[in-house]
Amino acid sequence: MEPLTADLFAPQCPSAETPFRIGDKWGGMVVVCLEDGPRRFSELRVPLRNISPKVLTETLRSLERDGMITRKTYDENPPRVEYALTDLGRTLFEPMARCREWAEKYLPSLQEARQAFDRPAD
Amino acid sequence: MEPLTADLFAPQCPSAETPFRIGDKWGGMVVVCLEDGPRRFSELRVPLRNISPKVLTETLRSLERDGMITRKTYDENPPRVEYALTDLGRTLFEPMARCREWAEKYLPSLQEARQAFDRPAD
Repeated sequence: MEPLTADLFAPQCPSAETPFRIGDKWGGMVVVCLEDGPRRFSELRVPLRNISPKVLTETLRSLERDGMITRKTYDENPPRVEYALTDLGRTLFEPMARCREWAEKYLPSLQEARQAFDRPAD
Repeated sequence: MEPLTADLFAPQCPSAETPFRIGDKWGGMVVVCLEDGPRRFSELRVPLRNISPKVLTETLRSLERDGMITRKTYDENPPRVEYALTDLGRTLFEPMARCREWAEKYLPSLQEARQAFDRPAD
């Protein structure tokens, strides 16, 4: 499996400006990160650059509680913990894709509107 | 135009539990409230029961800044202000509908997962 690239969710990514989010700020991003297979905690932190261990722990726990991911501990030394999407979690892809399509199509219009709104009146 | 019913967004509505939101907590609800035509500030507060005037003002301003709604003042006494969706704002309906369909289909599974997670182990 290819490692996740480090700039998958660059802070300057315009997707942060969309009116859509999946749940909280990070839940949707974790789902995307798990799309290709299970990941370890440290592997998730790399693409989610600015996330603190505390916030990532809370996000993963919330997704696990909602039945979207599983947390599996392997009896190794040091213990290995992996997070993976459930079938229920995979059902999120479809509506997330529709929201992403909206963003790709209409984000320029939203950004133009913002610039016009923020421009000082003559 | 029919007035919006007072219990459109009851606090106990399970939709508050979905992993989907449109932007912030209230933005998507305001869009839904404007689906049938322009509304005045006070008309929007009725269905958005728990919202404070401050939060509603901020939500409307944010949607206006993003080009999703317009704010029009009528020169009456007292002045009348109406909020309405733009064409861009109406493009939100389609992805919002997909998210709503997800919620209608999978919310019971999410709720079951939550109950199982919260149940004390034997």
